[in-house]
Amino acid sequence: MSPHADPLTTDDLDWLAPAVVDALRPTFEAWLAEAVAFPTVSLDASAGPEMEGMARWAAERLRAEGAEAEVFETAGWPVVVGTFRHPRATRTVTLYHHLDVQPANEPEWRSDPFRMTIEPGGVYRGRGTTDDKGPALAALLAVRLLKAADLPLNIRFVWELEEEIGSPNFEAFLAEHRERLATDSVLVSDTVWLSAGKPAAPVGLRGMLGVRLLLETGTRDAHSGLVGGVARNPLGELCQLISEIYEARTGQIRIPGFHDEVRPLDDEQREQFVASGFDAGRFQAAHGLTCLRTHDPREMTERLWARPTFEVHGLVGGYMGPGLKAIVPPRAEAKVSMRLVPDQHPETILERLRAFVAERAPDVRVEAGGMLEPFLDEPNEELAGALRVAMRFGFGADPAWVREGASIGAVVQMQRQLGCPILFLGLSLPEHGYHAPNECFDWHMASGGIRALGRYLVALAGPEI
Amino acid sequence: MSPHADPLTTDDLDWLAPAVVDALRPTFEAWLAEAVAFPTVSLDASAGPEMEGMARWAAERLRAEGAEAEVFETAGWPVVVGTFRHPRATRTVTLYHHLDVQPANEPEWRSDPFRMTIEPGGVYRGRGTTDDKGPALAALLAVRLLKAADLPLNIRFVWELEEEIGSPNFEAFLAEHRERLATDSVLVSDTVWLSAGKPAAPVGLRGMLGVRLLLETGTRDAHSGLVGGVARNPLGELCQLISEIYEARTGQIRIPGFHDEVRPLDDEQREQFVASGFDAGRFQAAHGLTCLRTHDPREMTERLWARPTFEVHGLVGGYMGPGLKAIVPPRAEAKVSMRLVPDQHPETILERLRAFVAERAPDVRVEAGGMLEPFLDEPNEELAGALRVAMRFGFGADPAWVREGASIGAVVQMQRQLGCPILFLGLSLPEHGYHAPNECFDWHMASGGIRALGRYLVALAGPEI
Repeated sequence: MSPHADPLTTDDLDWLAPAVVDALRPTFEAWLAEAVAFPTVSLDASAGPEMEGMARWAAERLRAEGAEAEVFETAGWPVVVGTFRHPRATRTVTLYHHLDVQPANEPEWRSDPFRMTIEPGGVYRGRGTTDDKGPALAALLAVRLLKAADLPLNIRFVWELEEEIGSPNFEAFLAEHRERLATDSVLVSDTVWLSAGKPAAPVGLRGMLGVRLLLETGTRDAHSGLVGGVARNPLGELCQLISEIYEARTGQIRIPGFHDEVRPLDDEQREQFVASGFDAGRFQAAHGLTCLRTHDPREMTERLWARPTFEVHGLVGGYMGPGLKAIVPPRAEAKVSMRLVPDQHPETILERLRAFVAERAPDVRVEAGGMLEPFLDEPNEELAGALRVAMRFGFGADPAWVREGASIGAVVQMQRQLGCPILFLGLSLPEHGYHAPNECFDWHMASGGIRALGRYLVALAGPEI
Repeated sequence: MSPHADPLTTDDLDWLAPAVVDALRPTFEAWLAEAVAFPTVSLDASAGPEMEGMARWAAERLRAEGAEAEVFETAGWPVVVGTFRHPRATRTVTLYHHLDVQPANEPEWRSDPFRMTIEPGGVYRGRGTTDDKGPALAALLAVRLLKAADLPLNIRFVWELEEEIGSPNFEAFLAEHRERLATDSVLVSDTVWLSAGKPAAPVGLRGMLGVRLLLETGTRDAHSGLVGGVARNPLGELCQLISEIYEARTGQIRIPGFHDEVRPLDDEQREQFVASGFDAGRFQAAHGLTCLRTHDPREMTERLWARPTFEVHGLVGGYMGPGLKAIVPPRAEAKVSMRLVPDQHPETILERLRAFVAERAPDVRVEAGGMLEPFLDEPNEELAGALRVAMRFGFGADPAWVREGASIGAVVQMQRQLGCPILFLGLSLPEHGYHAPNECFDWHMASGGIRALGRYLVALAGPEI
């Protein structure tokens, strides 16, 4: 996690010069617009045609650049794999991205989320621009430039279409094709910088457990005057259960045993978090938050990167229209999730949640959604050095070796199935709005990313690693 | 509240004979279908054309039967008044109904709520059939039959179009036209029987205070991984506030001072409630409730008729679609209300709620909705006697002098402005589904209501009262 000595000499890399990369801009913009136009909302069970179209389009792009490309069917949405083989390669690197996206039904969208717009300054707006189609296509263009260097390296793209739903079929896919997918390392490009100018190279991710809490106490809306006092109110009871599960104002989770496996931070880690360049004000502004639980950077970074959370995403049931409608609803659903940290496991946490709910609210049904393991790994020293050089080359700044609060289920699955080092070269900024309305990406991050990734691959092909 | 001696002889009322009433059935059905076809959702600010159409239609119906009818504009939706004057009348009775309805956006509707269907057995299905267009039109047909009797009685219809939103402009209307609206008594037909065969003549209604609780902590959806732990979650905090306001499982309200003015029941009242014919099983079945807070009829009737409630009607904010979307929403709204009992006042309760929220959750905005005073009145002995005779005539059963858990804001307003006794002759059954999807009414209740109301008006015109 400490800065590494630079194992590379600064070569003359004309084929990665800014002017060369800038010449790719029209291609990048055309590709990204085409990719955004596939509404690949993996949560939407009816998105089959869009997913197939996206996979076919992606495989064609890979083939056109010279890769052997294949669309692998799974029990869910497909996986696209494209391999650039070099006859003298002694190593293989795998670049992981995902081409599925979050839903985009927020009323705040100012334009069609699936028709990319280009704004002054090279800002690309649309669902999936930054998460994760933009970084994926930037990586493919880096590989195009790399041909000039004739690097003895096999480069494999793995483009998933189920990341946003927790990669439920990805591990089975990896296991089935483990030999064909053998690789020396993985680079994941699906994470967010600390702030513009402050690259982050996470060494850890939080895990996640999604849950729906369901309560039914009737068969139809009842008049709250005629039944009120005797009828049970499923919305009210779910509110109570939620407030028993956690203290929403502080975030403190009250499920017995919930924190048992949380690996505590030591003072050195806390210092590293604070020294990472995390900026409380920029964080707040970038995510559009008007108030916070705390403004202390030490507490903020610990809460974001090393502590679990409980979150309410939505309460469905009852009357949602204007004004009031005085009914007692017959049923309600709370959509909640927990972010988990090392060494918590979603299965164990789910069991403890179930036990707690069974005790407090035995009529409430607990339906588990996605389960993602948390990830934490001391990065391979040589690869970390190469990444540092690459970020400096692409963006003129060293990456901070921090953690990320979000979850990528595929990472732990690749760790288990491919058994190799996994590093992160994210290209997104907090203000790009992961999962938010008006999501965007920009040419500055794309072009810097092309150069950084190119430089990283040069290092991987070199004798030093 | 005790049974009264019958002040009336059983006259020969051929013009109210069942066969005569049955001959009106096609007219009633045609009228009700026309009335239901106006989607008079008073909550819908854009319902102007429907409201005007309904008011015009209603005034025309009244005029066609011989009334002087007028549509009075108010600051909100209009009020329709129609008076049948008799040259020798020494008394005036006012019949109150409302022609506005609840929204009908529940997914459970099996047919268009604003196209009435007639089902076998004379069941009329559609929004407003039982609440309160059916009872209103039955009353008008009773008055048509009454012409044959040439009763020396002025009969005034007051048809409101804002009952479902708490009658916010009705009292000003009454005050402005107090002299023209002078009346000796009011009969309200907008309440629900204990069960089929068990008429209820309520002497009390609960009041109501509607409130929206609003919390904003951001400007747009944020990614729960990237911000979780530091961002405040407005849905979670509203759940917590709600659970501080009340214990949802028992219904116990925790706002300090909330119960100060609740008039306690004495044992005699409790006995009367239990002896009223209230049937716990029928209650549960009629309202489609699969479980209850209590099954003890004594506790049930006390809870429904004489105790205040807190109710959650809906929580708006966050993600409502299928599955989970892992966002921290920027804002949330809880739609809640309290039913109040004598001698609670909505203004006082609102102040105590505001103080409680200010202490527990100072960022939460409290927006008051409708305020309805509770109502409780020992009914005028002679009128109560007439009502008993009327119900026996129309339905073959004595009414139970109970209370009703629902609220009719107009009642207390009429009590204040018109200063006369107010009685209730409701025609709705619990299974008709007040405010529920697939609301219905039926010819049995309509025809019995025509006969009962006719008999009541005969009594009012007679020398005994």
